[in-house]
Amino acid sequence: MTENTVTTDITRGDDFVKEIARMSLDFDRWYTDVVRKAELADYTPVRGCMVIRPYGYAIWERIQRAFDDMIKASGHENAYFPLLIPEELFTKEAEHVEGFTPQVAWVTEAGKHGKLDQRLAIRPTSETIIGTIMRNYIQSHRDLPQLLNQWCNVVRWEMRTRLFLRTAEFLWQEGHTFHATGEEARAEVDLILGYYRELSEDWMAVPVLTGQKSETEKFAGGVYSKSTEAMMRDGLALQTGTSHYLGQNFSRAYDISFTNQENQRELCHTTSWGISHRQIGAVIMAHGDDAGLVLPPRLAPVQVVAVPIFRDAAGRERVEAFIETWRREVEALGIRLRVDWSEGRPGEKFNRWELKGVPLRLEVGPRDVEARQVTLVDRLTREKRPVPAAGLWERLRDELARFQRALFERALDFRERNTYEVQTLAELVEHFREGTGFVWAPWCESAECEARVKEETGGVTTRNFDPDVRAEGACLVCGRAAAMRVAFERAY
Amino acid sequence: MTENTVTTDITRGDDFVKEIARMSLDFDRWYTDVVRKAELADYTPVRGCMVIRPYGYAIWERIQRAFDDMIKASGHENAYFPLLIPEELFTKEAEHVEGFTPQVAWVTEAGKHGKLDQRLAIRPTSETIIGTIMRNYIQSHRDLPQLLNQWCNVVRWEMRTRLFLRTAEFLWQEGHTFHATGEEARAEVDLILGYYRELSEDWMAVPVLTGQKSETEKFAGGVYSKSTEAMMRDGLALQTGTSHYLGQNFSRAYDISFTNQENQRELCHTTSWGISHRQIGAVIMAHGDDAGLVLPPRLAPVQVVAVPIFRDAAGRERVEAFIETWRREVEALGIRLRVDWSEGRPGEKFNRWELKGVPLRLEVGPRDVEARQVTLVDRLTREKRPVPAAGLWERLRDELARFQRALFERALDFRERNTYEVQTLAELVEHFREGTGFVWAPWCESAECEARVKEETGGVTTRNFDPDVRAEGACLVCGRAAAMRVAFERAY
Repeated sequence: MTENTVTTDITRGDDFVKEIARMSLDFDRWYTDVVRKAELADYTPVRGCMVIRPYGYAIWERIQRAFDDMIKASGHENAYFPLLIPEELFTKEAEHVEGFTPQVAWVTEAGKHGKLDQRLAIRPTSETIIGTIMRNYIQSHRDLPQLLNQWCNVVRWEMRTRLFLRTAEFLWQEGHTFHATGEEARAEVDLILGYYRELSEDWMAVPVLTGQKSETEKFAGGVYSKSTEAMMRDGLALQTGTSHYLGQNFSRAYDISFTNQENQRELCHTTSWGISHRQIGAVIMAHGDDAGLVLPPRLAPVQVVAVPIFRDAAGRERVEAFIETWRREVEALGIRLRVDWSEGRPGEKFNRWELKGVPLRLEVGPRDVEARQVTLVDRLTREKRPVPAAGLWERLRDELARFQRALFERALDFRERNTYEVQTLAELVEHFREGTGFVWAPWCESAECEARVKEETGGVTTRNFDPDVRAEGACLVCGRAAAMRVAFERAY
Repeated sequence: MTENTVTTDITRGDDFVKEIARMSLDFDRWYTDVVRKAELADYTPVRGCMVIRPYGYAIWERIQRAFDDMIKASGHENAYFPLLIPEELFTKEAEHVEGFTPQVAWVTEAGKHGKLDQRLAIRPTSETIIGTIMRNYIQSHRDLPQLLNQWCNVVRWEMRTRLFLRTAEFLWQEGHTFHATGEEARAEVDLILGYYRELSEDWMAVPVLTGQKSETEKFAGGVYSKSTEAMMRDGLALQTGTSHYLGQNFSRAYDISFTNQENQRELCHTTSWGISHRQIGAVIMAHGDDAGLVLPPRLAPVQVVAVPIFRDAAGRERVEAFIETWRREVEALGIRLRVDWSEGRPGEKFNRWELKGVPLRLEVGPRDVEARQVTLVDRLTREKRPVPAAGLWERLRDELARFQRALFERALDFRERNTYEVQTLAELVEHFREGTGFVWAPWCESAECEARVKEETGGVTTRNFDPDVRAEGACLVCGRAAAMRVAFERAY
């Protein structure tokens, strides 16, 4: 055990001491330790691919459900398109090919056939195949809009992988919509960006900057991209969702056209948008602490864990009988409660469930039984308070709602304390010599000035900007009139 | 238009006459026509891969939800394992490799790397990769059982493809469980088989034979397999779900072991089980008719369609105002209602929604408005009845429940009328010269006799048998003492 680790004893199967690095001393190692030891995900023998373990997958399912409900309420429909894309289809939109080809995995052989006539790309994203297929179903303006989404896996061959954030295979949703007008398509981009904000802020408790990406950072082949950008507890940025206006670029390349009201053929305006299991990485890095995860109640697979405390069989019986007086009601009213009857000392259980980020813990010992109460412990504040068993579920419901808000407020406060404003490149470079955080600066919108910042700071990039607000003042790099204020930060 | 087609006019976008083959004249073409024209799924430019369109995917989502709820209620958890399996891992269990290798698609090149050191199989099923990964999390008997499931895509390179039933890529769930004893693993196989029956009978309204597969038909590498077998309306069998006891075969090959209570290492007993979007094919072929689909209400994306009938704007207003008096209540109480305000004549709409299999249609014309009623039409019986608007939702709820039962009863009755019993190979061959249906016969359990039946009948195979019931009499082929009664039929 080295100095920068904190010990969290967990007895699970064999005696097994789990150590996680201290967040403040080694954020990267802390992250990997937490992901693996909280049993969210793990490395596998397959290069670049991870296993999402049940506890991590349960969080993903809640994210899926929340977002799926939003898009369905506004008329979007799920569908499923092929995993494999023939090379000749994949390569029709020039910028898109250039952007994605370096990451494509190719199927070249199959079964008894041996070598295939044509390589098949495993989808890195599906604009090309979905456009090719949807063109058959779009004839007239009456067939528009088409608002489609699919939940699926994609593969992008990555050199450096990082659990949840950058893996060769990942799970995501990709929305693809087809519209008669650019105005309608651009409104769709904003609608979805709003859903991404809602998902992030109301469910994940992670505040985000929503805005437009620079030309350099936009989706390969699109007209413009918008994104949600979150701040992690090391001050770095994580891009969590993107919503792209593709204009008629893909419609032109894939001939996706319709007959308008004047009986003329026109190209569709299209959009695409996606979020991935990277969202789980955002939750971990936006809320965690030295003891492990802190999960927002709305996504937590276990919202409340009860740890019984007893000395002998008779004591166990009394504690169990007491727990049974309120357990069913709490569960029936929709609170995800786990009573931990596993072997092991209470202290070990406290550590395990703290590592796993369960928002509320109930300690239930002999004195609690006598007083008809439980001892409620908050994962965020570590406060301990006795709470009467009578009316427990209302109390837990209120505490969970309060916890959800408090977590968001803490993350928002953290972001505000780590947000800065500079006017010159020198100030920006000085800031990023040691510092992190979002740094807003006036910018002329040129790729040259953006590149200059990246070079001088060793990797700081533009995150996003509000396209509707023109900036005053001079570009931080070239001194010409600024076009907008943009947020700079290093990103995962 | 040829003689064996029935015309179903559908105006959607351009004038577009849809024809579907008559079921009784060309079942195969009928099936493909219905799948495509009811907008469930379609062929794509990717060989062997289909697109699942929103209407088809919505059925799949309901199947997923129903089964997912069942397995979660009994402690199973979802997880996600890699799509790609390195060749050296894939090839450790000899029978398994032999069974699946002819169907594997291989990734051999990726991104900037070019050729990979080792080929990667796209999973045709995941026993090999899941076993390899799970062995790390199973140390002690306290870590057992592990009850895992994943919803994912798999690829099996098929020569002949058929929408939903046999496609190169398909969507499924694959369960993988790890147990301390064979007894517990075998109980798991039966538990899941029961869920498959429940899903099929209670949700899909498709009765199934549940039983054990022959040695010839079992899962490659397993000890035994059980299945659900449904009868389609052409009398042929469709295997819809399989649940496999793998014994210690995969544990041995992949070293999946645990320390038992006596502190000795032991190999786990494992199971795997799966259903795919083939279930949708079963629903189509078990219930459809010459007019198209007939969907069970519990899975139907639209349970009730209302078609407004009017002559002019004033008439439309009156109909709309009347519909609004009951629409919200019907929807709010959980009935999936669609009011079809699209362009087109009512007759076209009737045809379209019949093709799409919507269980109940409400015709709402001027006379209905006057009488404060709707005209209810049943997709199964075609009966038309006036129904008062007052209390409509209770009536629809009851009608949908009745429809669900009636559909199951009809399918059960059809199966019973197409089930036979024979004693000799000659009788069996005679039956299958023209006939179809399940034919029960006594069998000695030898692969030779099974092969003989297949040869003499040009493809009839054993479907499944009850392993707990010993048969009386002599094997239909060799005349030795029979071991059991088995159902024979041609299968998809």
